[in-house]
Amino acid sequence: MAHIKISAAPSIRRLPSYLHVVRQHRMMGGEFISGTLIARELNLEPIQVRKDLAITGITGKPKKGYPKEALIAAIEGFLGWNSPEDAVLVGVGNLGTALMGYQAFRYHGLRIIAAFDKNPHKIGSTVHGIPVLDVLTMDTQIRRSGVKIAILTVPSVSAQEAANTLTAAGIEGIWNFTNVKLKVPDQVAVQKEDLSSGYALLRVSMQTNRLIGEKWG
Amino acid sequence: MAHIKISAAPSIRRLPSYLHVVRQHRMMGGEFISGTLIARELNLEPIQVRKDLAITGITGKPKKGYPKEALIAAIEGFLGWNSPEDAVLVGVGNLGTALMGYQAFRYHGLRIIAAFDKNPHKIGSTVHGIPVLDVLTMDTQIRRSGVKIAILTVPSVSAQEAANTLTAAGIEGIWNFTNVKLKVPDQVAVQKEDLSSGYALLRVSMQTNRLIGEKWG
Repeated sequence: MAHIKISAAPSIRRLPSYLHVVRQHRMMGGEFISGTLIARELNLEPIQVRKDLAITGITGKPKKGYPKEALIAAIEGFLGWNSPEDAVLVGVGNLGTALMGYQAFRYHGLRIIAAFDKNPHKIGSTVHGIPVLDVLTMDTQIRRSGVKIAILTVPSVSAQEAANTLTAAGIEGIWNFTNVKLKVPDQVAVQKEDLSSGYALLRVSMQTNRLIGEKWG
Repeated sequence: MAHIKISAAPSIRRLPSYLHVVRQHRMMGGEFISGTLIARELNLEPIQVRKDLAITGITGKPKKGYPKEALIAAIEGFLGWNSPEDAVLVGVGNLGTALMGYQAFRYHGLRIIAAFDKNPHKIGSTVHGIPVLDVLTMDTQIRRSGVKIAILTVPSVSAQEAANTLTAAGIEGIWNFTNVKLKVPDQVAVQKEDLSSGYALLRVSMQTNRLIGEKWG
């Protein structure tokens, strides 16, 4: 993984939710959307919203806000979501199957064109319209298609081996849903998805609510 | 949702990964683990690690680091992961099934005791050893068991109705995997899981790597 610190990571994490809100307001009247409105819908501070959006290069107009279409274009452009990007998925278990059917990916320019598995009962089938291919052919298929993104949903024990095959075949970005810290060449980006993070926040929020309840209830 | 801003949210998000590293080093020799070692394993700055860990109330000793057992206890205590917490899951589709089999939850004191679905073919079965019950009995079952956490993996169209039933039955925290912004009473905590956030970070990392490649390659 490239040893780059993305200091704007929390801001980048929020960009998809801004995009979602602006798209929802696209159909409604008016050319502009205010940062305050976006902030209210997402329960954030307006100053935070303006700072986050600034990293995409856009600035709002006083008293008017952001031109909706320009804002959508700025976020999509910054994230690279304006051009569709193909991806493969490795490991067609429950999580893999769920991700293959995840509707939201379509709005983010992410198109899963093939999945790989080693189970003969799965190979040759389609899941949510996506073909499941033999993992032994993965290297060849990735080289031929030129796909650059892989979603990794194999069991932990197979994660590093799969990552090795993927990077050797030319994959530039791995979205890692396993709990393995992958060793990959510097030029390959890895985003590790850790569901525990969200659960940590939930528990702390619940504890905070309980304390407030005890104090004021 | 309680309108509390958790300014430490990014730090809280990182706590589970610290816990994971310290637990891995538990078996190895030595009473202490250094912040620098933790930082190196997670590709973070040491100062960031020390700041993050400080919110749990622990401070390291100069030149020694953190006592491993005390550090584990501090993180678990802060997150409320030291005592097992029961949860129910609503919506036994692909994602729900994947989460019911997610091994890591066991290490976070999260125990899914029952799942609910409306599909007659699923009701009465067990998934990963967890019973699937009729969603029509959900209110009664939650009241009787006293469970406080619900994991929501229903289709979007059913999300708000399920949330209404959950909060009426006494649920205090909803881990929301749907793309619906739920309306719930103030005292109920909601953590919305948005897979798009991780994908946004992956794409930006890939773009950064490509720019570096063009410049230096």
